[in-house]
Amino acid sequence: MMGENQRQAREDRLKKQIEFIIEVDKVKNIFRQTYLADGQRKENDAEHSWHLALCAVLLKEHMKEDVDLTKVMIMVLIHDLVEIDAGDTYAYDTAGAATKRAREVKAADRIFGLLPEDQGVYFRELWEEFEAYETPDAKFAHLLDNFQPLLLNDASGGRSWAEHGVHKSQVCRRNERIPETSEIIWEKMLEIMDKHIEKGNLKAD
Amino acid sequence: MMGENQRQAREDRLKKQIEFIIEVDKVKNIFRQTYLADGQRKENDAEHSWHLALCAVLLKEHMKEDVDLTKVMIMVLIHDLVEIDAGDTYAYDTAGAATKRAREVKAADRIFGLLPEDQGVYFRELWEEFEAYETPDAKFAHLLDNFQPLLLNDASGGRSWAEHGVHKSQVCRRNERIPETSEIIWEKMLEIMDKHIEKGNLKAD
Repeated sequence: MMGENQRQAREDRLKKQIEFIIEVDKVKNIFRQTYLADGQRKENDAEHSWHLALCAVLLKEHMKEDVDLTKVMIMVLIHDLVEIDAGDTYAYDTAGAATKRAREVKAADRIFGLLPEDQGVYFRELWEEFEAYETPDAKFAHLLDNFQPLLLNDASGGRSWAEHGVHKSQVCRRNERIPETSEIIWEKMLEIMDKHIEKGNLKAD
Repeated sequence: MMGENQRQAREDRLKKQIEFIIEVDKVKNIFRQTYLADGQRKENDAEHSWHLALCAVLLKEHMKEDVDLTKVMIMVLIHDLVEIDAGDTYAYDTAGAATKRAREVKAADRIFGLLPEDQGVYFRELWEEFEAYETPDAKFAHLLDNFQPLLLNDASGGRSWAEHGVHKSQVCRRNERIPETSEIIWEKMLEIMDKHIEKGNLKAD
């Protein structure tokens, strides 16, 4: 039998968890610059995060270093929650990038702070690990975060690159740590970029 | 060094994985009957699956039986992929329910068949385990699949129930295995249902 105090503590936790679950529903209305594969509309953060978690399961085998699948899945599921307050900063928006960290830290304090403390701390640490981009798990998560939009961009005819006048060198700079994370994925990324240079969607340098 | 055959095998796997990743993008356009928390539009399958995987991490502690978090997360990430071919069948659509299984099995054959065989078999088995609704993992996945829309329905003013004229007995029948999966979640569900009976969104029996 559960004691009355234990029961109350559990109910308090559930209340906070529900508050968080409803709060993060907002990422379904935060739209990215990537088009869906069918090119009909842009993708939102929830859809993107779902896709990354699924890709994590499938692509783990291509990583050079051992990774903790569960941790990476949780990392990608929550990596964009800070955008609820901070908004989406497009990968090649340099003005936005300057203030991104400060906006996102404040958002992380508020959003992860809704949870029971242990869970809030756990998510916050995972988000910081993702942002620091140092561990094999964070590197895998970043690979997913960069490879999935490239696949969608390819499927939708390179439209997002064309609309923003993106150069291959910008994509390569953003992805400079992919070769050390997975050679085979990096080769696929180069193949896709080169195809879209030929098609005129991505600018050669 | 990787041999040429090994390299070719790996490239073949990646090609199939990418084909699957692009194919399942379609669930972002499969809309459910549940409204987002803000009530502005209905939720799609990708958003729903993202939300369930995140809820799995948070709500695992409330389950009566031990569950395998990673497995449950993958299960909920893929549980609606069959709807790409079979469409979404509303929980309280009895005509649709009669043909649901046949439509979904055919869809599972095709969609999971796009993957490298081992990964296709793994996803297929997870999906069948979910459908069979017998193991603690499948019971947790179903709890998430039923509790999350109820939370959204609550946040959006019970609109989905009101629009479909749903009775409390229907919700209870659909959720008859929740009490044995988690008492505290079931009590929260009852509390939400009773609130919406009072408000006139859900019909008492």
